Amino acid sequence: MKKLFTILFILLFVFGCNEKPAETNSLDNPEIQDPLPSWNEGKSKQAILDFVTKTTKEGSPDFIPEADRIACFDNDGTLWGEQPMVFQLSFAMDYIKKEASTHPEWQTKEPFKSALAGDMKAVMAEGEQGLLKLVMASHTGMTTEQFDQSVRDWVANSRHPVSQKPYTQMIYTPMLELLNYLRANGYKTFIVSGGGIDFMRVWAEEVYGISPYQIIGSSVKVKYEVSEDGTPSLVKLPELNFNDDKEGKPVAIHQHIGKRPVFTAGNSDGDYAMLEWTSTGKGYPRFGMIVHHTDSVREVAYDRNSPIGHLEKGLDDASKYNWLIVDMKTEWKKIYPFDN
Amino acid sequence: MKKLFTILFILLFVFGCNEKPAETNSLDNPEIQDPLPSWNEGKSKQAILDFVTKTTKEGSPDFIPEADRIACFDNDGTLWGEQPMVFQLSFAMDYIKKEASTHPEWQTKEPFKSALAGDMKAVMAEGEQGLLKLVMASHTGMTTEQFDQSVRDWVANSRHPVSQKPYTQMIYTPMLELLNYLRANGYKTFIVSGGGIDFMRVWAEEVYGISPYQIIGSSVKVKYEVSEDGTPSLVKLPELNFNDDKEGKPVAIHQHIGKRPVFTAGNSDGDYAMLEWTSTGKGYPRFGMIVHHTDSVREVAYDRNSPIGHLEKGLDDASKYNWLIVDMKTEWKKIYPFDN
Repeated sequence: MKKLFTILFILLFVFGCNEKPAETNSLDNPEIQDPLPSWNEGKSKQAILDFVTKTTKEGSPDFIPEADRIACFDNDGTLWGEQPMVFQLSFAMDYIKKEASTHPEWQTKEPFKSALAGDMKAVMAEGEQGLLKLVMASHTGMTTEQFDQSVRDWVANSRHPVSQKPYTQMIYTPMLELLNYLRANGYKTFIVSGGGIDFMRVWAEEVYGISPYQIIGSSVKVKYEVSEDGTPSLVKLPELNFNDDKEGKPVAIHQHIGKRPVFTAGNSDGDYAMLEWTSTGKGYPRFGMIVHHTDSVREVAYDRNSPIGHLEKGLDDASKYNWLIVDMKTEWKKIYPFDN
Repeated sequence: MKKLFTILFILLFVFGCNEKPAETNSLDNPEIQDPLPSWNEGKSKQAILDFVTKTTKEGSPDFIPEADRIACFDNDGTLWGEQPMVFQLSFAMDYIKKEASTHPEWQTKEPFKSALAGDMKAVMAEGEQGLLKLVMASHTGMTTEQFDQSVRDWVANSRHPVSQKPYTQMIYTPMLELLNYLRANGYKTFIVSGGGIDFMRVWAEEVYGISPYQIIGSSVKVKYEVSEDGTPSLVKLPELNFNDDKEGKPVAIHQHIGKRPVFTAGNSDGDYAMLEWTSTGKGYPRFGMIVHHTDSVREVAYDRNSPIGHLEKGLDDASKYNWLIVDMKTEWKKIYPFDN
């Protein structure tokens, strides 16, 4: 069962927020007003402010040149929610329902039959292969432009099952402030997510202010095809290209960014390897942080025993690597943009 | 034989130039002084100026928002030279010589034996597999940090066989001006090269002002490993990950950038697909250009009959797609930085 949930991450997925172009990056007097108003005063806020201040102060022994200010963020559970189901899986389920009329065979074929009945338990019972079938059916066999449109429509029309808010409002306000604060201080912000790279890119530029080329995720193979009338397209194939989870994250950081991050934020053991890769870098100070889901009232409290966002090794080794554990419950004044 | 040279591109490689951070991108009164001083007045210079002017003028029907100003450049033969041998192959050959003492078996084993003797003809006679062996021996079986250092040393100490200049001076001054001009007007400049992504990233940030995460190229697989004492590293494996040539280029653009370019520059049929992908995009004006190697005195004249930088389809279809053919001989005042 754990394996099933693991595949949720392995295959999946991600969603959004609200911000500014990723490229404004001069030191704009971050002191003048509080850059992190949704963070309570305390250890986490202070640690972030201290790190950014010391690494951007010319002449400081901890100074990091702007070109090397690379900050990586996991998405699900770090920048936006991931409960009760990783949001990209909701997209896949909704897609199956929407397209059911053109696929009569799905009425009798698992896992489509259970997906159409909204029976997640039965879907899960189909195992990794079942989930993979849902993902491939909803994410491949179409051009990249068709897929983008499909995600765009879903983002516009779907609602989170608990809050009834659009998914792009299920984002963590304190983390948006952090993204902005880092960018205002010359940091480049990247997403490094187990979620689908094509899925995130559709909405993340507007929601997080992160350009598509600074978004890294899992992907399927893509093929360049030119039709008989000479129109080229990129077709998404039902074959995994890259699984951007666990040890895949530092690999993806290398292949996409080509530099070792100095700042990394995650929330689960899927982020352990990229946190480790960040914190063991030489030459510059490094900052690793873990968003700890401790608020059962405003959000969901989960860690060691949760199949979604499983966090165990990260907690055990946090002191070894000096990772900051952010306590959502006590350290975040507000969680979502719609919170009071 | 043609196939052999093709593999030069397919497997390989690339090298360097000289410039500014990729992130200065506001409209800085490009009119005040000539942004392209090494370009003679004429059709190419005018076409570039016209395109940038109309796409950056707010209110113009041709206006392109800054977030969508994506410009892609091939490297070998487009930003720097590629004769008499793709530069990354020189790196591979030099590496074999440098490491020969630790590999006594190379003295008797092809293609290493011929590479050590500097006998390129015999190396070529070994075919694709032979070249692949040289590439894998010089590019894999080491950590990414070790590889970076190996490239850094080579860049510092090697010289181009004809000019006797460092390879990082074998760059086209007019193209550097073009990169700067585009960036000064809010364009993001990317390299999309058949050359090795890790090879280029070592020097291209300093030389072209292009950040590693805006450099795309061919790659081998990389593995994240943690040693017994807890030190993680990324190890380059002798297995091709991605071949960033021909139809691979639009695929790589999708996977890395996630947006369709509006401006693309190449010089060979290896760039045809990315030029086609660019020029058939909808909604915005598009600009495709081909650097045509016509100067046998200051550089090397080659196109349809050359195995290196083979250009045939691109010339045939240039008018169909309105691609600008840049005549190096008549349109470039100077080619290399060291030219008078």
